[in-house]
Order: sequence, then structure tokens, then C-alpha cells
Amino acid sequence: MNDSYLNFVNSPLGARVARSLGLPKPEVLRRYRADAPEFDGIVAVGAGPAPQLLDPLADVVAHIGMTSVAHASAGLWVPLANRHGLMTGRFEPADPAAGSQARVKALVFDASGIESSAQLESLYTFFHDAVRSLDTCGRIVVLGRPPEACASPRQWTAQRALEGMARSLGKEARRGIAANLIYVSQGAESGIESTLRFFLSPRSAYVSGQVVRIGAAPGGIAPNFGQNLGQNLGQDFDWTQPLAGQRAVVTGAARGIGAAIANVLASQGAHVIGIDIPSATQALDATLRQLGGTALALDIAAPETPAQIAAALDELGVDVFVHNAGITKDKTIAKMTEAAWRSVIDINLSAQERIDDALLEAGTLRDGGRIICVSSISGIAGNLGQTNYAASKAGVIGRVQGMAPYLAARRITINAVAPGFIETQMTAKMPLALREAGRRMNSMSQGGQPADVAQTIAWLAHPGSAGVTGQVVRVCGQSLIGA
Amino acid sequence: MNDSYLNFVNSPLGARVARSLGLPKPEVLRRYRADAPEFDGIVAVGAGPAPQLLDPLADVVAHIGMTSVAHASAGLWVPLANRHGLMTGRFEPADPAAGSQARVKALVFDASGIESSAQLESLYTFFHDAVRSLDTCGRIVVLGRPPEACASPRQWTAQRALEGMARSLGKEARRGIAANLIYVSQGAESGIESTLRFFLSPRSAYVSGQVVRIGAAPGGIAPNFGQNLGQNLGQDFDWTQPLAGQRAVVTGAARGIGAAIANVLASQGAHVIGIDIPSATQALDATLRQLGGTALALDIAAPETPAQIAAALDELGVDVFVHNAGITKDKTIAKMTEAAWRSVIDINLSAQERIDDALLEAGTLRDGGRIICVSSISGIAGNLGQTNYAASKAGVIGRVQGMAPYLAARRITINAVAPGFIETQMTAKMPLALREAGRRMNSMSQGGQPADVAQTIAWLAHPGSAGVTGQVVRVCGQSLIGA
Repeated sequence: MNDSYLNFVNSPLGARVARSLGLPKPEVLRRYRADAPEFDGIVAVGAGPAPQLLDPLADVVAHIGMTSVAHASAGLWVPLANRHGLMTGRFEPADPAAGSQARVKALVFDASGIESSAQLESLYTFFHDAVRSLDTCGRIVVLGRPPEACASPRQWTAQRALEGMARSLGKEARRGIAANLIYVSQGAESGIESTLRFFLSPRSAYVSGQVVRIGAAPGGIAPNFGQNLGQNLGQDFDWTQPLAGQRAVVTGAARGIGAAIANVLASQGAHVIGIDIPSATQALDATLRQLGGTALALDIAAPETPAQIAAALDELGVDVFVHNAGITKDKTIAKMTEAAWRSVIDINLSAQERIDDALLEAGTLRDGGRIICVSSISGIAGNLGQTNYAASKAGVIGRVQGMAPYLAARRITINAVAPGFIETQMTAKMPLALREAGRRMNSMSQGGQPADVAQTIAWLAHPGSAGVTGQVVRVCGQSLIGA
Repeated sequence: MNDSYLNFVNSPLGARVARSLGLPKPEVLRRYRADAPEFDGIVAVGAGPAPQLLDPLADVVAHIGMTSVAHASAGLWVPLANRHGLMTGRFEPADPAAGSQARVKALVFDASGIESSAQLESLYTFFHDAVRSLDTCGRIVVLGRPPEACASPRQWTAQRALEGMARSLGKEARRGIAANLIYVSQGAESGIESTLRFFLSPRSAYVSGQVVRIGAAPGGIAPNFGQNLGQNLGQDFDWTQPLAGQRAVVTGAARGIGAAIANVLASQGAHVIGIDIPSATQALDATLRQLGGTALALDIAAPETPAQIAAALDELGVDVFVHNAGITKDKTIAKMTEAAWRSVIDINLSAQERIDDALLEAGTLRDGGRIICVSSISGIAGNLGQTNYAASKAGVIGRVQGMAPYLAARRITINAVAPGFIETQMTAKMPLALREAGRRMNSMSQGGQPADVAQTIAWLAHPGSAGVTGQVVRVCGQSLIGA
């Protein structure tokens, strides 16, 4: 739980030692705090030819109260921003002599109009000019169109190239800067606000190198799934309490990441029902009591549990269900017992299936609801000694992709988060060398916090995220490890 | 080009030193040699419930002349193998006292009938029993059904879980063992031979942790694209000269990976036309002369080149086109020149587009032909100092995915290989620490050889690989690095 290296190199003495020895200096990440402004400072806007997303972007920037500056590539921005009543000016590249005045908090590039590989040069121009102006813990967001919905192979190619660009920017920016790519489907433009807010906010501190689709899911949802999303939120929507009046269930809520999820969802207005095994009742009660939530001591592996959950929720229903509970029983396959295989698959994967079936059949999960599953980098990349765990977490990815089209008719979304190295009691028990490798092998050079996973889940749970489904978002500080 | 650590720890003295110090001991990989049998030894077969691919599997095992043993999970295998005239017996788990007799060369598991997460246990049973019997440089192949074509979300989930299993097996097997997953579409069963041969052969020495689809491509091709594949090969097909009578073009063929590709394609019977820039004419001529091929000194970046290539090939046409030529001009984006961005995008990506357009328009690339592009792990994961290169190589992935559906009507396939750390003159010039990290951060604990990339391309070029399209196959020894 305690990254003493991070603390040391960020102390006055430690910083000097690290500098003189040439050691890496991970940045203390700026995270969301209720007592600090979520959005402030300047966003610099750039664009490729014929950008199509500047208007919805201006809308969001105006809502969140950031100031904007327009790079030369985004000439359309100034009149547009004026129309949205947005403070704006021209972007001037940072002058080393000018000090911190030239610093911007975010770089947003609208690549939606790029139709050929040659036009990618507009990305070069913007980021070449602007990346040095980006503040520590700043944000890079590239907006594009889902390649698979493009009209021509050349456009598909160019839009797909954005992935290589965004991921490379994340790897070279360092200094706690996160870089992500958002593909917005035609017709889903009005549904970008919750996603754009998340990726511009300190809430996404440990989410970098990710590719998110709004209004599309690879190989599942019809491209117009996301049309007219978010319009139902209305002008009076309270963005500080997006889950007000909603009921959210979190499994494995007693401690660690589960408790953090319960915490964040409650802070956004949800009534949280926390589930954990009977042996964790005391911790579960304590966690839920301080959130004004409800504790349900149930073993999700028990065959009668799905019906019991449905019955417990029956009258009021549920809007958000977070499948967080999971276990590890690591051993190489040759040494693994059958019981270790079976319990990991059952608790991490089959139990989720049984619970969803019960809730969906009973109509307990309301139309327009959210299912969010916790996968893992091990489910993406596989891992030594984790054949059972990796299979279960890869299965979770399949569940999310396979269920999304079925649930779309009821406007229910299903997504997964895939945590990388997160500082928990579990990782605190790892051997030192393994723990240090896990902490440093990512673009942030540090582990994430349970709250980083929880904030990502809260974004997916958001009523405005109706166009995000069938997707897997890593919370890993852009870990090197992948597939 | 010379991995002295690998050589050292595989010398008698070095092995002792490594053992006593607990150092990693990368295996000298068994690679294809014309003077050694490609297939020999025993394949152990396992299966989940209701396996659907044992019949085509038996066909292939009989063709290649391996012996088989059936694990208890694959009870159907013995009568089936007998029907195919295949030597077969029962699998007995390795007894440490029995020595090397119990060793098998490959483990193949038919997971095609698995419909639920609980049924994944059959994978545990087989690999738990069998993995210790697998010889050094052995092969693990898991056969499944493409999740996206499954009838229910539960089946999709279970089939998708196979990815986590196969990748974990690759990471824990070590000892030069490669583990891969092949998804075979309904109706594409007859088209598995070229792919199965490749993954059982020493030709796939450096390909591990990969997922390949036959008769399906994620989000592109109709699921029945691969139907009745390979039947046209006929009983008399010469598997030692699969490209006999074919013409294959390789760009960047003068040296390194390009020369290795030319070499392998020629050894499989193709007449190779090698292209490289005029300044490399001498090396190009030398490479092609010894293959009996044709050298074409052309700069692929020049606007007139596509038409010149089409004209040069016009009379006889071309069956296989390998877009291998590429350059790097590494710098962080802030320091990168516009010229460095432009030339990398143009040569690595736009030139491929211009050439394909010209060849397809002129009909130079014959119906049923093959386009194979060289991408890179940097195109998948992004890389520090390679915004231009990573964008170009991510664009290549988009090209392959975007073109595949368009080309399917002409039975042309398009795929990419994504090399990881390959021992070339380029990597020999890397700083030592970076080179060592690149070499060791994969399941083989070593870099690959240019021939590993070339052999993978030859599999994709194979007439029997008609059902493989729109895919990206990494040649990286299961590098840790990914997205």
C-alpha cells in the first residue's frame, strides 16, 4: 500500500539524490478531491482537416469551465468557442523563458475528419508544437471515428493509425500525463460529455494508453447504437451527483478495490448495496455503514445466491451492478489442484453469469442499467502461475463483448475494467522484486490506487455513458504488459 | 546479430555458471532446417466435451506423419485415429523416473465444443496431466471456435476465456515451448492444415501467445468466408513446395528481414521479385541472384513507382505481395522534424496503399492472391520516440483489417506480421541495456531471427491459408510488451 520509493524521490532530499543518480522520478499523480476544483486551467485544441467534433467539444469545455486556446490547426475553434460563450485565445508554443504561464492542462485533438495517411501529419504539427506546453499530470485526448465504421479502407487505415500515435504520446509524455483515444461514432456526438469529462479529469489519473468507443463496440453493436445519447440528461442534470436516486450493487465490497468502488459510487449519489462473504461481515458492515449503504453478507459462489440477490433487490430494483468479487489461487498448471482451478473460474466468472441471468430474468436490473465487470491485465496478457485466473478474466472480457449486443435492446450497457498493478493489501504481500517491477513497468512508474479503478467504474456507471458498451478499459498507468 | 549470453549459457561451462547463479537460461530454439525432418515424435491429444475438430486434426496428424497419444479427455481419438491409419496409443503422464521416453513434441487440445465456463475445467485436466511431458521447444495448440460467431453469450465467454489460458501456458511453459490458440469457424474445418502445420512445425519457433482465426476476421469477414477452404489443394499437393509456380514480390529485399523473406519464399518454390532502393542495388542483386529471382531497383516512395511495379509484373501477374520495406526515424515528437514524420508515414504506410491500389486496379495481383504487410509491436503498443513509426505501423493494422472485407470477393487475403525484437543489423546497433531488455522480455528470453518472420509470412502466403485474412500475427516470442 505504501510506495516508499515514490515518497522518497518526491521529498526534497530524495529528489536531489534521484537527480544526481539519474533514477526515475515518478510523479505524485493529481487525483480527484472533493475539496479541489475538478477542472481548471487551459485546454489547447488542435484539429486535422474537416474536424467534425469541435462543436460537441466546445459544449463540454464550456460546461466544465475550462479556458481554451486554439492551435493554428484548429482555426474553426475561435468562432465556435465564442458562440458557446467560451473564453478562448490563440495557442502560443511554450517559451522556456516564459515560465509556467504558458502551461496548459490538456491537449485535445479532433482527428475525426482525417481520411488518409498523409493527413495524419496534422497530428504531428499539433503535438510537435504543443506537447512541451503540457503541465505535469496533464491530459492528451485524441478524438477520432471508429475505424470499423469508416467508408473506405484508406480512412479506416488512417483512423486506426491514431492508436499508435496516442499510445506513443502516452509513453513519451511521462510526468504523470495520460494520453487516450476516443472514437466517436457518427450520431453519437451528443453522448461524449461523460467520457470527455472523465478523460480530462483527475479522476482518470491512472488510465492511459486506452482506446474507447462511444456508440460502437468492436464486432457487436450496430453503429447507430449510440445515437442521441445523453440528450436525456437535460440542462439541469447535476454533474456532481450523477448517480443520485440510483441503486448500485458492488460485490466484494468489504475491502480494497470493492470498498473504494462503493465509496466512489456513494459519493456520486448512489445508494450502495455491498455484498461480501459472511466471513467478512464485520468489514462489510463497517464499509457500508459509513456510506449509508446496505450490507448483504452472501457468498456469490453459493447456488442459491443469485435468487437471494434478486429477492433482496426485488422491490426497488437496481441500476448499476459491479461484479468486483474475485480470488486468486496461483500455481503453475502442473502443480495446481482441481479445486484451485474450479473455485477461481467459478467465483471470478461463472458466478457473474449466474447472477446476471437471475437479475435479467427477474427484471431486477432496470432497463438503461449498467453492468460493470472487473477483469485484469492477466486476462488480456496471460500470466505465469495464473492459468485459472487469466482464463476467468479473459472470460470476463468475452462476457462483456458477448452480452453487449443482447443487452442493447434494453439499453443496458456492460463493460469491464482491467486493473494493472494496484496498491492493495494483496500487492503489498508480493515479493519485493516482483512488486517493484509491477510498480515501475508503466508510463506512470508507479502502482495505481483502488480509487483509480473505482473512478473508472463510476464513469462507466454514469447515466451519460449510455453509448459505451462491450468495452474493456485498462486501469494500469499504461503498463508495458499486454498482448 | 550475436546473442553472446544465449551462446554462453548454452556452453558446458556457461550452463554450470548460470545454474549456480540462478540466471535465466534461454533455450536454443529448434528451427526449420531443410536437412532435418520437419515433423517427428508424438502429439498428445486432449479434448473438452463434444469436440468438433478431432476429425480434421487426425487428417493433418496423419499427413505429417506424427504419432499420437490420446489423453483420457479425448476418448474419441483412438477409433478416429485408427480410421485415419494413424499410429496411436493412450497418453501416460510423464514419470520422472521414466526418462525421456515419455516426452511428447506437441500438446493439442480441441476446445471447440466448450459451451460454458464450467466446462473449461477440461483444459485444466489435460494440461495439468500433460504439460510436464512436453519436450523442450515443444508446441501447445488450443483449438476453439471464434467467440464472435458463438450462438450464446455463455459460449462466447467460454471460448474467449481460452485466450487467457493459452497465453498463460505460453508464459509458464518456457524452455522454448510455443503456445497458440486457433479459432476455427464453422465450415472452415477443411482449411486448417496449413495453419496447424505451421504451429506444429519448427517454422513457428518464435511465434507464441498468438490468437489466429481461420474463416473469420474480427469485425470484417462473413463467418462463412472460409468455407471449404483448402479442398482445392488436392491429394497430390506438394507440401514441400507450396508456392511452386507462383510469383512473389518482396519490398526491402536487399538485406535483413526482407532478404530472409525472399529466401524462404524462394525455398518454397516461388519465383521472387525483390524490390529495394537504387542505392541498395548491389546487395539486392546479390540476394536475388542466389535465389534465381529478379531484382527491381525502385524507390517505393517515388510517385511513379506503383505504376512501374504494375508494368514490370504486368504480363505474368503476381500471387504474393509482401510489403516489408520500412524505415525508422526515431525522436520524441517535440524534437522530430516534419520531414522525419512525413517520410516514415509515407514509406511505411502510404506507399503500401499506393502500390496496392495500382496492382489491384490493373489486376496485376491475381484473384486468390496474398498481401502480407509488416507491422510491428510498436504499432500495437506505441513506443517512446516512435510516434511516426508507431502511427505508420498501427495504420498497417488498420489497412489489413479495412481491406480484408473488400478483397474477400476476389479471394485475396491480407494479413500482417508484427515482429518484436528481431536480431538484425538494426538491433545490433542499439544501446546494450535496451538490446538486452528487448531480448529477454519475452517467453523465449531471446530475440528472434529474420527467418522467424519470413516463415510466418510464408504460412500466410500458403495456398492453404485462404481462410486467414484481416489478421495480425506477432512474431515476438510472446513479448511482455503489448497493449
